[in-house]
Amino acid sequence: MKSLQEKILNEGSVSGSDILKVDSFLNHQLDVAFLNEIGKEFKERFKDEKIDKILTIEASGIAIASIASQYFGNVPVVFAKKAESKNLDKEVFETKVYSFTKAKEYSVKVSKKYLHKGENILVLDDFLANGRAALGLKDLVDQAGANLVGVGIVIEKGFQEGRQLLLNEGVKLESLAILESIENGTVKFR
Amino acid sequence: MKSLQEKILNEGSVSGSDILKVDSFLNHQLDVAFLNEIGKEFKERFKDEKIDKILTIEASGIAIASIASQYFGNVPVVFAKKAESKNLDKEVFETKVYSFTKAKEYSVKVSKKYLHKGENILVLDDFLANGRAALGLKDLVDQAGANLVGVGIVIEKGFQEGRQLLLNEGVKLESLAILESIENGTVKFR
Repeated sequence: MKSLQEKILNEGSVSGSDILKVDSFLNHQLDVAFLNEIGKEFKERFKDEKIDKILTIEASGIAIASIASQYFGNVPVVFAKKAESKNLDKEVFETKVYSFTKAKEYSVKVSKKYLHKGENILVLDDFLANGRAALGLKDLVDQAGANLVGVGIVIEKGFQEGRQLLLNEGVKLESLAILESIENGTVKFR
Repeated sequence: MKSLQEKILNEGSVSGSDILKVDSFLNHQLDVAFLNEIGKEFKERFKDEKIDKILTIEASGIAIASIASQYFGNVPVVFAKKAESKNLDKEVFETKVYSFTKAKEYSVKVSKKYLHKGENILVLDDFLANGRAALGLKDLVDQAGANLVGVGIVIEKGFQEGRQLLLNEGVKLESLAILESIENGTVKFR
């Protein structure tokens, strides 16, 4: 997605050899017009699939999934929860995800009310790096007996193992921008 | 907002005398078509105001604010962050918020890059109860020297003190549904 590559080059900031920050439009401030372009592109990438529901994970995935849903006939969005919440249902699908960014393992949960057997689920998220979050969401879909139609990612770190881990599981993966490397403060795209 | 009251009565579940769960459309699963109705209503409530940016707080506020932005000319949305994030800027506006739901105080931060002096800020959030989150967001707006145009809330617990605390601070408050009480498993609206 050319416009996304330009946006990353214009607004992103890199540090070290693996951190890209896109806080100005995706992870802290949200560019809603641009999120609509992203949503349209996800629809284009998955236009031949029947999608009943979009699954994402809090927090940054929520805006992406909500805006994208509008291009999939306003299908329900479910966001998996990371933190302990007093108000969450007792009956949940639960999995463990290791976050390299935060250097800790955390629990990810979805109420059993909102994922059902046989539903066609599209997973959307902001970043794919080591693939742990995406695999965790796949696990929740599997636990529910639902069908994972595919995983749509805004920015993939192509130099990390997420893609291979998902392909090994037979997942259809669509990333709108794939970073080949981050070196000397510069992003190269695949 | 009549359709919101109906949605709460049809899909909400209550427990005790103060908990209303609306996980099916607002806090876990998201009804995107209905969020569009909410966004339109916020625009109607604030139609005479100049809004440069919408400020909310992760996680549930993100969907509401992102969809609502589309009715305010796609103004940028900024979501304040609750958790420690390795990737967040060093230069932040920060405030402390006590959560009665989670029974703890937490830090709420916005990067100084995304709130500026003189900007007209609309705060949107899912619930207003004791008002601590809304007052925290107001504090961040004040720290930036920006103008708080108003606070828009989807569901206000009218039997708690949030409204009075915000009115004491001179805040223009618009709630789309105001709960008068939650008693015997039944919601009454003001």
